[in-house]
Amino acid sequence: MTSHQPPLWRRAVAELLGTALLVSIVVGSGIAAQQLSPTDVGLQLLQNSTATVLGLTVLILVFGPVSGAHFNPVVSLVDWALGRSSGSGLTLPELGTYMVAQTVGAVGGSVLANAMFEVGTSISSKDRATGGHLLAEVIATAGLILLIFALAATHRGILAAPAVGAYIGAAYWFTSSTSFANPAVTVGRIFSDTFAGISPDSVPGFVGAQLIGAAAGLGLLALLFPAASRTADDVVVPHPAGKGS
Amino acid sequence: MTSHQPPLWRRAVAELLGTALLVSIVVGSGIAAQQLSPTDVGLQLLQNSTATVLGLTVLILVFGPVSGAHFNPVVSLVDWALGRSSGSGLTLPELGTYMVAQTVGAVGGSVLANAMFEVGTSISSKDRATGGHLLAEVIATAGLILLIFALAATHRGILAAPAVGAYIGAAYWFTSSTSFANPAVTVGRIFSDTFAGISPDSVPGFVGAQLIGAAAGLGLLALLFPAASRTADDVVVPHPAGKGS
Amino acid sequence: MTSHQPPLWRRAVAELLGTALLVSIVVGSGIAAQQLSPTDVGLQLLQNSTATVLGLTVLILVFGPVSGAHFNPVVSLVDWALGRSSGSGLTLPELGTYMVAQTVGAVGGSVLANAMFEVGTSISSKDRATGGHLLAEVIATAGLILLIFALAATHRGILAAPAVGAYIGAAYWFTSSTSFANPAVTVGRIFSDTFAGISPDSVPGFVGAQLIGAAAGLGLLALLFPAASRTADDVVVPHPAGKGS
Amino acid sequence: MTSHQPPLWRRAVAELLGTALLVSIVVGSGIAAQQLSPTDVGLQLLQNSTATVLGLTVLILVFGPVSGAHFNPVVSLVDWALGRSSGSGLTLPELGTYMVAQTVGAVGGSVLANAMFEVGTSISSKDRATGGHLLAEVIATAGLILLIFALAATHRGILAAPAVGAYIGAAYWFTSSTSFANPAVTVGRIFSDTFAGISPDSVPGFVGAQLIGAAAGLGLLALLFPAASRTADDVVVPHPAGKGS
Repeated sequence: MTSHQPPLWRRAVAELLGTALLVSIVVGSGIAAQQLSPTDVGLQLLQNSTATVLGLTVLILVFGPVSGAHFNPVVSLVDWALGRSSGSGLTLPELGTYMVAQTVGAVGGSVLANAMFEVGTSISSKDRATGGHLLAEVIATAGLILLIFALAATHRGILAAPAVGAYIGAAYWFTSSTSFANPAVTVGRIFSDTFAGISPDSVPGFVGAQLIGAAAGLGLLALLFPAASRTADDVVVPHPAGKGS
Repeated sequence: MTSHQPPLWRRAVAELLGTALLVSIVVGSGIAAQQLSPTDVGLQLLQNSTATVLGLTVLILVFGPVSGAHFNPVVSLVDWALGRSSGSGLTLPELGTYMVAQTVGAVGGSVLANAMFEVGTSISSKDRATGGHLLAEVIATAGLILLIFALAATHRGILAAPAVGAYIGAAYWFTSSTSFANPAVTVGRIFSDTFAGISPDSVPGFVGAQLIGAAAGLGLLALLFPAASRTADDVVVPHPAGKGS
Repeated sequence: MTSHQPPLWRRAVAELLGTALLVSIVVGSGIAAQQLSPTDVGLQLLQNSTATVLGLTVLILVFGPVSGAHFNPVVSLVDWALGRSSGSGLTLPELGTYMVAQTVGAVGGSVLANAMFEVGTSISSKDRATGGHLLAEVIATAGLILLIFALAATHRGILAAPAVGAYIGAAYWFTSSTSFANPAVTVGRIFSDTFAGISPDSVPGFVGAQLIGAAAGLGLLALLFPAASRTADDVVVPHPAGKGS
Repeated sequence: MTSHQPPLWRRAVAELLGTALLVSIVVGSGIAAQQLSPTDVGLQLLQNSTATVLGLTVLILVFGPVSGAHFNPVVSLVDWALGRSSGSGLTLPELGTYMVAQTVGAVGGSVLANAMFEVGTSISSKDRATGGHLLAEVIATAGLILLIFALAATHRGILAAPAVGAYIGAAYWFTSSTSFANPAVTVGRIFSDTFAGISPDSVPGFVGAQLIGAAAGLGLLALLFPAASRTADDVVVPHPAGKGS
């Protein structure tokens, strides 16, 4: 939006690469965990969640200054929604570009993880869309949106990298769905017939729940941090994660 | 107290939501751990404590600027007690509002976790009030109070989020009671008939021990950081956790 | 030494309490780990080391501004040795007071942990003084001294709390002795007949190795950070851990 | 290069010691894990990776101000390559000195770990050079280079210590090779016939993959952070890890 921002193509590359590596971390560590600790699923999840906490924090540090390190269509959507009145935030064409880059990257990340572990890429058969899991996705996504934009609203975006990593690490465990909370990552994980996969049949329910959760997160943000949705001068939200540009 | 503080209703919402999510994290990750690692209770506790370290840190970051992120009646009580002489700190009506919000939130958090994992909400039958556990609650609560108000007294409240998360993570393990250290959370965990629950019969003993611990923590604070209880200009303690307002 | 320092009695109380809590964390989490994960010693050590990383970091944050949060006679000894030429650092009577407080605290910490877990306090029968373990104590202590005083020499003492916690967490694993690296803690752990204990017969060897390690750490410090041992104006080492006074 | 840098011999000592301790941490914690948790390889890797995250972070903090804390020939190589046009970065003789120090240190680190655990030093027979593992080394090294020099390019080198530690912790899990990503460490781990070892036959493939990964990382850096490879005034890269001098 400003002259200081990198060109859109570079930001799209960052979103694509970052989301690909995020899914590689989730799927790759899931495969490693399943292979190395075959007898205890909880131990697998601890390995999977620990790798994600560390890796997601680093990805936000690396790509944040380029694209804001959204890696997540609902984060980009809220960024667009919050910025409309003030003229900050993503424009609609930028939003579309981000979403496409994130989704393509997510699928690529599954393929990359499968290649590193020499398991064929195939479609997951893991059904996940129970009532409890859908409620969990609503909660997980609402919390994620509230966290990212509360940090931005209080000028603490510099904490986003470790805070988002920590949040996802907790959400793996306290939500019954292990907290996907990200439509692009949900689509990407279709292509992993492992511990970390999700059946295509469960995707629409998960994405729907994530959209409801994003709306709920926006509502909580307006309730708790009213300045975040009202003023433009005081709040900079184009690149909530990372130090932005 | 000052014109910069959010209105009390908003701070009460933050305390209610934050405490609800804290209990959801404790109870939800406890259910997940019990389901996924059924053969090793220590591994369950490691999963439970790891999720709590990460999640509690994030909750203090998010809600700290609104309400101070107490999430704990004894923290609010000490805040009131320390602020009486100087006119800073919570007033008595504010203290009551905080305590009610925290307790209602804690119960709601158990209900939410049970709903996500599709286990019915019922009353815990887990007896915990042994002599060793009560001593542990005294120690755990004294340490928590000393930590929070020592950081405030030395103008390092910005470290409260990771420090309180880390403290609770250690206290899960070094105290025999797994460190409840929080009357609201103790009440909330009645409504979880799982790994993380507590029988109503054990609650009065635990809450009593926590109050004794809070008094002990105040005593240690006065001994080690005498300025914290004597001066008002030098010490800002209304919102010790988070960046406050 | 300066007028800004707390009186010696208060600093001694901080060293006593901090060392007591450190040993309570090590011994208490060791008992919990042994009781909850009886079939896998490695899992016990992971629980024990994780609790110590978190707890030690918090203890340095809390007590650092009062006493420097040494909690360790060899750290105090090096502080005295480095400060002799410049007049900074502990005086000899202060050094003696610190050492007594640390040792008394360490014993008290074992007794407290045993009381919380309702196991009787008795003398450990765990022999540890093998050649490999003594070499490990030399390495572990040299690394600890180098870390603490390298941070002080480069004006990064503010990082001591998480850095020392992280160092001990790594040293639990990469040294064969699980890294005692602290004569007071070594003495304190005599009084824990558990996973975390040490037989009195092994203590002289361990303490001797720790003293050799401290000397080695001082040598490395002089080699890599020559200013640390030469100048007084540029280097402030009275309270290397914590923000000091 | 500048008058503020320590002399080359001191920087070489720092690289040698730091790399030795890094390999001691990797190999030592690998031996401990294998001995203490013999029945679950995933749990061993969790212990091994957790110790490395903590230990590597501390090593970068300690040695960063002296030598830049490269500990890795491909990091030094990229430092030299990026600095050629601007006159910053290592010179060719310095590069050679760093590489020799790192490799000698790495071998010494294996010997030290073996001595602490009283296992003889012998040559590993662990074959690792599969197609998937080589792809994994390319990815792991590209990510490491991108991380270190992206932080330098955006003036956040102060975050290198925890960020590189976290990155390696994630890469242990999401890459099938457990992420060596370092030719010196790869050579050093030949001398550990344990969990953490690597057969000499696998070394050339691993080092080749790491060189390809470093080139790929440089390409990504040029794509995402064009200023990093073009300007000298704006970017300081002689000592990307640590606070440098």
